[in-house]
Amino acid sequence: MPPWTTPPLAAVRLSDLYLCPRQDANHAVTIPACLQKCRETGRLEAFGLKLRKGQQPEPVVWWDSDVAKVAEGMAHDLALYPDAARERELEDLVALIISAQRPDGYLNTYFTSIEPGKRWTCLAHDHELYNAGHLMEAAVAHHAATGRTRFLEAMCRCADHIASMFGTGPGQIRGCPGHPEIELALVKLARASGQDRHLALAKRFVDERGREPNFFDAEAKKCGRPHPGLVNMQAHRPVRQQTEAVGHAVRAMYFYSAMADLAAETDDTALLDACHRLWDELTRHKLYVTGGIGSSRDNEGFTAPYDLPNETAYSETCAAIGLVFWAQRLLAITPHRRYADLIEIALYNAILSGVSLDGVKFFYDNPLASNGKHARQDWFGCSCCPTNVGRLLSALPQYIANASADGLWVHQYISSQVTADVNGTPVALNQQTDYPRSSKIRITVNPAVPVRFTLRLRIPEWTETAPARERTHAICINDVPLVSPIGSNGYAEITRDWCRNDTLTLTLPLALRHIHARPEVSDDAGRAALMRGPIVYCVEEADNGKSLASVILPDLATWREVPGDGIFQHFTLLETDAARAPVPCDPDAPLYSSAPQPLAPKKLRAIPYALWDNRGVGEMRVWMLV
Amino acid sequence: MPPWTTPPLAAVRLSDLYLCPRQDANHAVTIPACLQKCRETGRLEAFGLKLRKGQQPEPVVWWDSDVAKVAEGMAHDLALYPDAARERELEDLVALIISAQRPDGYLNTYFTSIEPGKRWTCLAHDHELYNAGHLMEAAVAHHAATGRTRFLEAMCRCADHIASMFGTGPGQIRGCPGHPEIELALVKLARASGQDRHLALAKRFVDERGREPNFFDAEAKKCGRPHPGLVNMQAHRPVRQQTEAVGHAVRAMYFYSAMADLAAETDDTALLDACHRLWDELTRHKLYVTGGIGSSRDNEGFTAPYDLPNETAYSETCAAIGLVFWAQRLLAITPHRRYADLIEIALYNAILSGVSLDGVKFFYDNPLASNGKHARQDWFGCSCCPTNVGRLLSALPQYIANASADGLWVHQYISSQVTADVNGTPVALNQQTDYPRSSKIRITVNPAVPVRFTLRLRIPEWTETAPARERTHAICINDVPLVSPIGSNGYAEITRDWCRNDTLTLTLPLALRHIHARPEVSDDAGRAALMRGPIVYCVEEADNGKSLASVILPDLATWREVPGDGIFQHFTLLETDAARAPVPCDPDAPLYSSAPQPLAPKKLRAIPYALWDNRGVGEMRVWMLV
Repeated sequence: MPPWTTPPLAAVRLSDLYLCPRQDANHAVTIPACLQKCRETGRLEAFGLKLRKGQQPEPVVWWDSDVAKVAEGMAHDLALYPDAARERELEDLVALIISAQRPDGYLNTYFTSIEPGKRWTCLAHDHELYNAGHLMEAAVAHHAATGRTRFLEAMCRCADHIASMFGTGPGQIRGCPGHPEIELALVKLARASGQDRHLALAKRFVDERGREPNFFDAEAKKCGRPHPGLVNMQAHRPVRQQTEAVGHAVRAMYFYSAMADLAAETDDTALLDACHRLWDELTRHKLYVTGGIGSSRDNEGFTAPYDLPNETAYSETCAAIGLVFWAQRLLAITPHRRYADLIEIALYNAILSGVSLDGVKFFYDNPLASNGKHARQDWFGCSCCPTNVGRLLSALPQYIANASADGLWVHQYISSQVTADVNGTPVALNQQTDYPRSSKIRITVNPAVPVRFTLRLRIPEWTETAPARERTHAICINDVPLVSPIGSNGYAEITRDWCRNDTLTLTLPLALRHIHARPEVSDDAGRAALMRGPIVYCVEEADNGKSLASVILPDLATWREVPGDGIFQHFTLLETDAARAPVPCDPDAPLYSSAPQPLAPKKLRAIPYALWDNRGVGEMRVWMLV
Repeated sequence: MPPWTTPPLAAVRLSDLYLCPRQDANHAVTIPACLQKCRETGRLEAFGLKLRKGQQPEPVVWWDSDVAKVAEGMAHDLALYPDAARERELEDLVALIISAQRPDGYLNTYFTSIEPGKRWTCLAHDHELYNAGHLMEAAVAHHAATGRTRFLEAMCRCADHIASMFGTGPGQIRGCPGHPEIELALVKLARASGQDRHLALAKRFVDERGREPNFFDAEAKKCGRPHPGLVNMQAHRPVRQQTEAVGHAVRAMYFYSAMADLAAETDDTALLDACHRLWDELTRHKLYVTGGIGSSRDNEGFTAPYDLPNETAYSETCAAIGLVFWAQRLLAITPHRRYADLIEIALYNAILSGVSLDGVKFFYDNPLASNGKHARQDWFGCSCCPTNVGRLLSALPQYIANASADGLWVHQYISSQVTADVNGTPVALNQQTDYPRSSKIRITVNPAVPVRFTLRLRIPEWTETAPARERTHAICINDVPLVSPIGSNGYAEITRDWCRNDTLTLTLPLALRHIHARPEVSDDAGRAALMRGPIVYCVEEADNGKSLASVILPDLATWREVPGDGIFQHFTLLETDAARAPVPCDPDAPLYSSAPQPLAPKKLRAIPYALWDNRGVGEMRVWMLV
């Protein structure tokens, strides 16, 4: 079991001005809209097992996973927004899903209705195990939210059926899924059911990946369909020997998450070492400043180190969500702010950009520059991103704080009330802040009875990259300044006898910073990004007109922080009069000339990157000339 | 007929240090290699009409065009390099091609062997008219080179068969080709055969394109295959009303060339006006500094104005060749240096980059930046570019000079001997120069008898964009300086009684220039390109290491012009010690930081863009930080 315990969702209440409106939109709009899309497109009907080849839209092998992720989101959401009608809707959906399960435990609409003879014949492409994994995650969430067990039991039966099919015994398939997912789901299932056999199946799938002779090569020959590439599936080397984040980014994140889970469950240091190597490699070479990953549309994934184009950035919403899943697991096993820092950056930038403020439109890919054509859509043929946003935003509370053996860890500064158990004593942590808009975070610590423990507060690494005069964070307890050491893990540690209403104030420096990429990142050369705290800013055509690639950023000191209004309420915007830009060209002037266009001062307004394309399509840019 | 006459290829001899080695490689290597590839892949065998579906490689509807372009190149080449063995080889090829013609005149290997029932059923996709057009061009070239008529006659019969199939009469198809090509070929056929009926067919195809109701929409319904888009085929509007270069770039160029041809043949001012509008629009919005066009791989063509990405630039070799075809036609109808300037820039940059110095490897797409993965290949599944390079390089002499009613025009400064007819008097023009390496061009004018006429010399527009002190060109006749006016068409005009061995010296300023793009071109913002005369330079990893996107160009004055050696013999290279670049980063340093990497001086060597990737793959960049 992991060394930490996360408070159940129902033990957390968010009141954050930044995130609560997002969670409200997720509850009120996104989750119902995704359910409706599943209904309209036939994904729900599919569980009636009357799918026919050729029906429109054409059924696809991954349909079940969309329904599963909606169900998971609905379950998380129910814990946050108890509602009898929603609960009935969820129970109806669960009943529908379970009704499709076959007597042997198998549960998959496509291969029950459309190609019943092809069960388990093409793991590289057919997503059967991927779907089953998402259904298991949904079942665990349903159980956690409602205490009801029928879905969990159904998915345990499904897991047992799968366990009977896969292995090295006679007649069994020695294989693993083309799209990882079931591995992490089986760990969740084991934890929820208390059944270690599900863990053993997860381990079998993890250990199989990349082993020689390679299962996928043999399968491709047998079924006559070329597999999508061993690298694409992270099956190019035994997992414990992998050193570079490669292939399809979402597959990689789900798989690395399972590696971390199994490392924690089985004390497998070789798996954990591989995770740490992969993390280092990814974050040093393949990470957008927004926390997005997977730069190429061609493979929906990773390419060469430093290949981070902005306008064609794929940076799939699901990949950033997967990165958060992985980071959260590594944070629990080897606590270090690097993981919580990246969770924060990915959440506030690459993930929140994936959904419009009103919760109805989604980016699949999240580029860092647009020449005016990229816009959110309300659904996709492969609609993994909307449903992933739905289940992540409804599960946000679990990222805030954890209890460990000797106390509490605060990872994310989000206005909230969290109740956690510290060695048998319930402790309520009440955060009040409008961070990341302002720099002050006030945390009231309320143990049921006075108790001694260590409270650890993440001091983000970016606080050390701010200009020197602002580099210090400050902590007060009951208004008395406190000098608290920052551990090598990047957390300030405060060990004391905590009493009712002890109030702790943390101030983090939020000075605006220019971010520069390494010179190897060709698209960012000669350019800088603007960050304030964890928020990446961008400039948008709606505020600044066109030709934004040619605008030159001014000195940091010339920017004014201004409160947003309208849809930007609760957000800090940035304005300056001191940017420079080429004087607009005569439309008839030639395309090329031997003299540069003269520069003139330009007013510029920057908004948080995650908020772009909420006022219609237009140009957008994160990296600006300096 | 066009207002100008072009000396036949055999009347021109090249001796140019820059281009002759290219033409030699084309003769010795490229054309034989393309013929061999046609043999190996089954494209020649196809004319035996024994193609079978499923054979490997799978026959494709455009195969005939590759063979046709090889034959055309062989014919041009024969005029330059008379050789009995080569002539026999060509005649054998011609005999093979003609053998596939059906009794009714139809000539197409795919639809004769593989889908005989589908003749003319899907013009949007099936390339039947495109192939026929290339075969007609080959036949005209064969006739011009050898005087033999069997191929020309066969293609006239083929044209007559096509004329019988297409039109508004009973049972005829009221359509036009999805991929333009036959239109310009029919004009050539009409000129070579003297038969105006081929012109009428060309005009029918041109006039049909974009008419309502749109043929392609009706055809798509009938044959059940969606067409590739009306815009893609320039069929979105009647051609005389078109205002923007759109769609597939090669289709556009071939079609605009035919529009210009017909405008000249029929004095159709509406067609000519459309050509001028399209030219202006294209050159103002959609032209790479290399003369490449068609920025997107998705449609192999045009996108929005100013959308000119460098690393993903498609800039297909064939599209730049098509641009040269179109420019040459407009130059003949409405003489202006703008056309000859662009022919020069496209030839020396976007086209010559399409083939390796040794003539064996080809770019299909010619990006202006590479992160080290783009490399020439020896053939392609759709191998239009190698065969197009073959026929262009063998036809280069026809771009040098023309005769008009009142004299001679010199468009391109290439060491050569051209014999042209000026009102009945043969005049030999002997150019001696190693322009564009050096700035002096010496032209000896040798009329058979003394004769008065106007000699016009192109003064490239870029001479007026050089730094002021170098902006002047200079002309001497028999070593006496001459002040000659530059006409509004950009040509210096010298009218006099020309005598034997009159020697004219033209000096063009070749000072290095920085080129800046309009601020709307996002990929070029904050960057400049280096040009010297018509030559675009680039920096390559082989000389300068990696991370070239971060290198900052120095002042122009710091560059030294150095003569190249080895494979770069005859080329001027550029060197400086004053560039700046970020100090190389510690490999373990983070990807992002709040301080820019310090800069250090850097030596830089630039080579002509067309010569990159002749020393192995690696980074390359045209546009550099300034």
